[in-house]
Amino acid sequence: MAEKPWGGRFAAQTDRRVEQFTESISFDHRLFEHDVVGSIAHARMLARVGLLTEAECEQIVHVLSEIRQEIAEGRFPFSIEKEDIHMHIESALTARLGDLGRKLHTARSRNDQVATDVKLWTRDAIDRLDGLLADLQRAFVAFADRHRDLILPGYTHLQRAQPVLAPHYALAFVEKFARDRDRLADCRRRLNVLPLGAAALAGTTLPIDRESVARELGFDSVAANSLDVSSDRDFLAETLFCLTLVAEHLSGWAEEWILWSTQEFGFLLLPDSVCTGSSIMPQKKNPDVLELIRGRTARVVGALQTVLVLIKGLPLAYNRDLQEDKLPLFDAVDTVSSCLELAAVVVSGAELNRDRISSRLDEGFLDATTLMEYLILKGVPQRTGHEVVGRLVSLCESRRCRLADLPLDDLRAACPAIDEDVSGSLGVENAVKAFRSYGSTAPDQVSEQLTAWKAKLGQGPNG
Amino acid sequence: MAEKPWGGRFAAQTDRRVEQFTESISFDHRLFEHDVVGSIAHARMLARVGLLTEAECEQIVHVLSEIRQEIAEGRFPFSIEKEDIHMHIESALTARLGDLGRKLHTARSRNDQVATDVKLWTRDAIDRLDGLLADLQRAFVAFADRHRDLILPGYTHLQRAQPVLAPHYALAFVEKFARDRDRLADCRRRLNVLPLGAAALAGTTLPIDRESVARELGFDSVAANSLDVSSDRDFLAETLFCLTLVAEHLSGWAEEWILWSTQEFGFLLLPDSVCTGSSIMPQKKNPDVLELIRGRTARVVGALQTVLVLIKGLPLAYNRDLQEDKLPLFDAVDTVSSCLELAAVVVSGAELNRDRISSRLDEGFLDATTLMEYLILKGVPQRTGHEVVGRLVSLCESRRCRLADLPLDDLRAACPAIDEDVSGSLGVENAVKAFRSYGSTAPDQVSEQLTAWKAKLGQGPNG
Amino acid sequence: MAEKPWGGRFAAQTDRRVEQFTESISFDHRLFEHDVVGSIAHARMLARVGLLTEAECEQIVHVLSEIRQEIAEGRFPFSIEKEDIHMHIESALTARLGDLGRKLHTARSRNDQVATDVKLWTRDAIDRLDGLLADLQRAFVAFADRHRDLILPGYTHLQRAQPVLAPHYALAFVEKFARDRDRLADCRRRLNVLPLGAAALAGTTLPIDRESVARELGFDSVAANSLDVSSDRDFLAETLFCLTLVAEHLSGWAEEWILWSTQEFGFLLLPDSVCTGSSIMPQKKNPDVLELIRGRTARVVGALQTVLVLIKGLPLAYNRDLQEDKLPLFDAVDTVSSCLELAAVVVSGAELNRDRISSRLDEGFLDATTLMEYLILKGVPQRTGHEVVGRLVSLCESRRCRLADLPLDDLRAACPAIDEDVSGSLGVENAVKAFRSYGSTAPDQVSEQLTAWKAKLGQGPNG
Amino acid sequence: MAEKPWGGRFAAQTDRRVEQFTESISFDHRLFEHDVVGSIAHARMLARVGLLTEAECEQIVHVLSEIRQEIAEGRFPFSIEKEDIHMHIESALTARLGDLGRKLHTARSRNDQVATDVKLWTRDAIDRLDGLLADLQRAFVAFADRHRDLILPGYTHLQRAQPVLAPHYALAFVEKFARDRDRLADCRRRLNVLPLGAAALAGTTLPIDRESVARELGFDSVAANSLDVSSDRDFLAETLFCLTLVAEHLSGWAEEWILWSTQEFGFLLLPDSVCTGSSIMPQKKNPDVLELIRGRTARVVGALQTVLVLIKGLPLAYNRDLQEDKLPLFDAVDTVSSCLELAAVVVSGAELNRDRISSRLDEGFLDATTLMEYLILKGVPQRTGHEVVGRLVSLCESRRCRLADLPLDDLRAACPAIDEDVSGSLGVENAVKAFRSYGSTAPDQVSEQLTAWKAKLGQGPNG
Repeated sequence: MAEKPWGGRFAAQTDRRVEQFTESISFDHRLFEHDVVGSIAHARMLARVGLLTEAECEQIVHVLSEIRQEIAEGRFPFSIEKEDIHMHIESALTARLGDLGRKLHTARSRNDQVATDVKLWTRDAIDRLDGLLADLQRAFVAFADRHRDLILPGYTHLQRAQPVLAPHYALAFVEKFARDRDRLADCRRRLNVLPLGAAALAGTTLPIDRESVARELGFDSVAANSLDVSSDRDFLAETLFCLTLVAEHLSGWAEEWILWSTQEFGFLLLPDSVCTGSSIMPQKKNPDVLELIRGRTARVVGALQTVLVLIKGLPLAYNRDLQEDKLPLFDAVDTVSSCLELAAVVVSGAELNRDRISSRLDEGFLDATTLMEYLILKGVPQRTGHEVVGRLVSLCESRRCRLADLPLDDLRAACPAIDEDVSGSLGVENAVKAFRSYGSTAPDQVSEQLTAWKAKLGQGPNG
Repeated sequence: MAEKPWGGRFAAQTDRRVEQFTESISFDHRLFEHDVVGSIAHARMLARVGLLTEAECEQIVHVLSEIRQEIAEGRFPFSIEKEDIHMHIESALTARLGDLGRKLHTARSRNDQVATDVKLWTRDAIDRLDGLLADLQRAFVAFADRHRDLILPGYTHLQRAQPVLAPHYALAFVEKFARDRDRLADCRRRLNVLPLGAAALAGTTLPIDRESVARELGFDSVAANSLDVSSDRDFLAETLFCLTLVAEHLSGWAEEWILWSTQEFGFLLLPDSVCTGSSIMPQKKNPDVLELIRGRTARVVGALQTVLVLIKGLPLAYNRDLQEDKLPLFDAVDTVSSCLELAAVVVSGAELNRDRISSRLDEGFLDATTLMEYLILKGVPQRTGHEVVGRLVSLCESRRCRLADLPLDDLRAACPAIDEDVSGSLGVENAVKAFRSYGSTAPDQVSEQLTAWKAKLGQGPNG
Repeated sequence: MAEKPWGGRFAAQTDRRVEQFTESISFDHRLFEHDVVGSIAHARMLARVGLLTEAECEQIVHVLSEIRQEIAEGRFPFSIEKEDIHMHIESALTARLGDLGRKLHTARSRNDQVATDVKLWTRDAIDRLDGLLADLQRAFVAFADRHRDLILPGYTHLQRAQPVLAPHYALAFVEKFARDRDRLADCRRRLNVLPLGAAALAGTTLPIDRESVARELGFDSVAANSLDVSSDRDFLAETLFCLTLVAEHLSGWAEEWILWSTQEFGFLLLPDSVCTGSSIMPQKKNPDVLELIRGRTARVVGALQTVLVLIKGLPLAYNRDLQEDKLPLFDAVDTVSSCLELAAVVVSGAELNRDRISSRLDEGFLDATTLMEYLILKGVPQRTGHEVVGRLVSLCESRRCRLADLPLDDLRAACPAIDEDVSGSLGVENAVKAFRSYGSTAPDQVSEQLTAWKAKLGQGPNG
Repeated sequence: MAEKPWGGRFAAQTDRRVEQFTESISFDHRLFEHDVVGSIAHARMLARVGLLTEAECEQIVHVLSEIRQEIAEGRFPFSIEKEDIHMHIESALTARLGDLGRKLHTARSRNDQVATDVKLWTRDAIDRLDGLLADLQRAFVAFADRHRDLILPGYTHLQRAQPVLAPHYALAFVEKFARDRDRLADCRRRLNVLPLGAAALAGTTLPIDRESVARELGFDSVAANSLDVSSDRDFLAETLFCLTLVAEHLSGWAEEWILWSTQEFGFLLLPDSVCTGSSIMPQKKNPDVLELIRGRTARVVGALQTVLVLIKGLPLAYNRDLQEDKLPLFDAVDTVSSCLELAAVVVSGAELNRDRISSRLDEGFLDATTLMEYLILKGVPQRTGHEVVGRLVSLCESRRCRLADLPLDDLRAACPAIDEDVSGSLGVENAVKAFRSYGSTAPDQVSEQLTAWKAKLGQGPNG
């Protein structure tokens, strides 16, 4: 049993089924880069405080770099007997350096080592996700730009409500993703505290220098309580939550564009390259990418729930249950990353069907609220104005006409406050132009927002 | 684009990123056995109704069997361009048989094909799980048998409550897993309805014979509504729910045995083969297998939640979102299967620490309720009896003694109804012997239950 | 502290904040009926075995009935000091009967008492839910009947796919709810095992007769292991799961009808009585009931998750955590019950907009698959047929015409196997008539199914 | 139908069952304070921009304040016909002021009104929660202080690992709650953006001044996109997530203290005032409050899931589903608030059982790692040191002695590097004193952290 790093007191061999059940190398091999980086920083610190000589440190760093290279190039053998990525790297190190390799584990435990690895990995993932979010924001901004003057029906309850400019619509998503980026930035700041040096749970009696490790690995500070950080997976749950909201935002957008792609709406023209067909129905062109983006929300919600169930009721400090934290993290990061990437492809390739949208813009009385607000400006109380317009809408429905088609007499019969100038509030185009408030779909407002976003995103991380 | 089974009307190539995003072959290759079995049954039916000749059918069946063999032996090339397992098999068939291969897809769609595959796979999974549950029940029965006369403290609120026989404790889990098996059997019955023949969503105009396919594939009946079965994933959600309750049962057991393995309880001796040590703390022997079983509950709950989120709000009939149903299914089946297997290993290898348990059995006033019931038999109202014994417990606590150590005078001072025969109700051994009710920890009751379970499980599926 | 049923050994008073935190009377008062019924059965059994006299039993039963009446009529005072419904009823009993009241708690604990109450309550809830599901099935059958000959576009990926008869569509939901009823029936059977007599966790030393209690309360059998049943909440989780699938089925239907209510689809006419308007947009008529049904799915999924998280990792037997099981149960039952009730109202009041649907039925090439199957019957391999029709669809799109509008020459140019009889497979009406397979949308098939469901549901529980 | 604020175009009455199904007054009445505050700010703005006169504004503000008072004092009649809190307040206003009352709804919709109300309510809730978290931190700091020199066994895998100081243990939770407060502060900052003025979804044509409303209501900025803010529930999901992590932290602590309260651990003495007893087992003293805190985690996780399921796949902008967002928010805030309050009560009342803890501190080889690190300082490679100590532990187990009991000869036989000075590393007290690293359980480190937290929390919001 001496092959296990913890074999000393054990008389019997580990059962093969137990090895298969407890291994994590099949998924935590993804941490290899960060494990090596963390180990190098640890080795350098051990040298600084005299627990390794400079020469020993050099050797360790050199061989670790070699191992990293071999793993990156697929030349490194993995086997479940060695449990996890940490054991793989350390046993390779020891195979090459003998007793010196064994010294690397001085003053650390796998508990603080894996917490450090996962934090480093997650920090990089957050940075990549931020870039993908910025790319998607840019795709929406470009979409806004190329549909600058198009008026869309706006919906509440999926019923036609008021007209909105297409760029106003597109920027709504830019806002949502901006909040996601802000949330991820907060999460990154909060996770950026070094666990290494907490050792198993209580710290160490050896004279280590955690501050210098933190500096080398880019952590903002050092965890102040070893018991806390040994048991802490807040950063992982928080990352998953941030990803869940990204996925939720994508799901709402995907749902809407699936609707817009129907024969019935007909608002959206998707490029063939993001659709697939049917094996039995030759005429089909299905918005599969959008459906999968919507569906994969479920996976991210499930990953978050997995972690929330996992950590429920665990006493301090480390418990082996926590090994299960990485799979949902990896899966959610992969899922959301590819959804963001594909979302940008779809948004970049999509065109709104101007003819179809415009030809039916008169349906649904999108100017009704503008008419009501016209009445308010004439001094009619809001609730009264609401009733008046409600009755006019019923009148139009019975006559199968638009509000703009009603003769002035009929309008005045419903409400004497109506004047000839009412024509400026009727019809969808007039209705859009009438908007004024900050944040509204008023053309000026939208234009300003669009300009502001262009400026902001021009400097984005992946820009 | 002619390589895609749906390429006819498409002008542009699928984007490579889209192929990667939409492929399912990386996980649905696991369905290959069931896909081939389903296709063979379909081919035979097509021959029976005259849509294939006998000779054509023979050829198709022969080549499908070849392909199955190649996949099983790892000699079959997979690539994401071919999307899913169905396309892989069909394109190999067509490569070898030309136009004849193309005929296999007559009167079916991938929608009903995949539903059939997944149902067949799930049905087999349920049968395997049933066997694993029976094995685990047998392990608990054997555990009960080899700790037949041992008395354990029973707990509520994790406080010592009343004494229970170790076999009574072990059989509680046998009961839970019996319910799980019963639930899975119901689920299996409900899923065992053939989807094939629903085609894309509406059935087919071709003269197929679904009854005969159902018979050949072991389905109890044929789905009566094509729109329903095209959109139905009830069987998958129900399977995941059944697995979730299995996992929950395992989690409670694992939690308890983790407690029992502590220095403080010291009830349980686990074999080294199911424990691991620490890389930094040389004295540690950790119950990792139990912790992972407890932790992996989270994964199964997460898988269920994924499917429940996935299917929320999907209109009829098939939507591509449903492709995401397989990963959580596969993961939950794998997870629960291996947890059940390892649980049986642990239960089979575990011994209760008789000395330690017995030496502290007098702590916690486990006979207090028996004393109260003694009072009731003497005619004291329950609530009065409760108060009397409560006061006697306080008395013992102040004297640091057991109820059995109190002189009769003190007992009678607390309640004159107490007689000399009270000694038969005091002390943990007497308390256990006093039990009488059906389902209780009374030695006779427990013995009968144990005998009954042995008889029942002797005939188990994996027995 | 003698007012608490467990006060005997306690020196200090319960903190008022603790009373507020631990009370359950604010929600478990709903169990009062079942608590009284269970107590009466318990009292009668105690009399049968001699632990009460007949006269004592009579008195207890009489006063319990009084108390039930008072609670039902709102004349019974509740207060959080008395924790839960069991204590309220018992202390009222004792207030009226003195020591005799205290005898009722002989040979039972609140653990088995509350498990019995909740099972009785749940069993009744399941019966009510079954009736509501049957009512909703009948509403769909009536809907099917009054739209008997209407052809709808059928969808996959929300793209028009093949034509389906409106009754075929409606019966898809009848099938789903039939599975729900079947699932609930299994759940009911599995829960119908008596916990009472398990006492706190180990059974009792008193000579009780559990079989007779089971008979009186309508349980099929008696729990065979006291530790198991004290900790068992499977029945509750399973009920919530069954409700979750009901909610999921409702959510898909609601989603679809929300779409159908849009200006763009225009398929559905909802009565004003199930819609609401907007406080600011006078023209709006929103399908609020459908939206709330869809939204409330979330609540039921959340309730299930709550219970699954709650029971994770709980050791045997009873833990106070389990008090939290009732709120999600009550909420999910209430939510699903009202959703089912309202769904039936909506289905009964809804009319399909025949003109609108028919006028656009030619869009989307709903007959393409029928044409492909025509080719197959002419001996063309399926994949070739698929390509041919794919190309014809492209041709139609360029000419902005229907498949039925293509001259025979064009059809034959695409595939020489096409004959004059192809006209029988073109056009949506012909396409529907061409269906043949069992479970398909073929008019005969649909008619048979409709007849069968009418026969079955005529005998339903609420029929 | 004129009583409904949207009744204008409706011909038929709302079905009574529909009213019951769609009402929210039964829970959103809790928003009344914030609804009035928001309405007053809106009225003042309308006056500033000339849509109301000063006198009109005064009247409205006066009557709104009256209504608020009446609701606060329970003198205000609620009825489900009036749907929600907004309608109740507005219809009371209109009843008292006639047409003037109707003017208040100028330039706003219930969509932006309710978003504003919920944000204001949530902001207040976050502030209260922050105070409760600080109170609990102070309780842990006081607990740390009064157990300043007590050594506890530290655990990993629930196995004894290394010794830790009791204050080090307590401060681990202070750190966790500090992260919770930090997270809530980020959430508060992100939510503090004014929705009002977005109107239904597109803004308004009326000349409103949103900036001034934001200032009056304490919002940091104004939502820049009306479609985004109408559909945005990020702040609500994020609040629930922050609460979920608080609950998770509480659940781990509660789990541990439930263990510590067992007969077997015996570490913790809980005051009677936070425990309850059993109705059947007179000796029981159960840690109910801790169990309920652990159990209620489930409710908060369930609430988060409810919201995540709710918002999945909703298109822009407002959908009625969103009405369901408030119940989980209210429930989670109430649940976590009371759990935090009671947790502080428990922590303040709890004493560690010094005698019991100390008497068994020698079990579990808590000094083994210190001995290994002693070897490292002597130049022995870590892995070798680990093996040496592992063997010494086995030796002790066979002799049933402590590491400190081994004769120097035996120690040197295992590893010649061991010297007489090894005695300074053996025994639990020496082991604790030997710690040095930042964040470790070293007495100096712990003392510094304790001092720092006292300073920080002295200035806390509820301090």
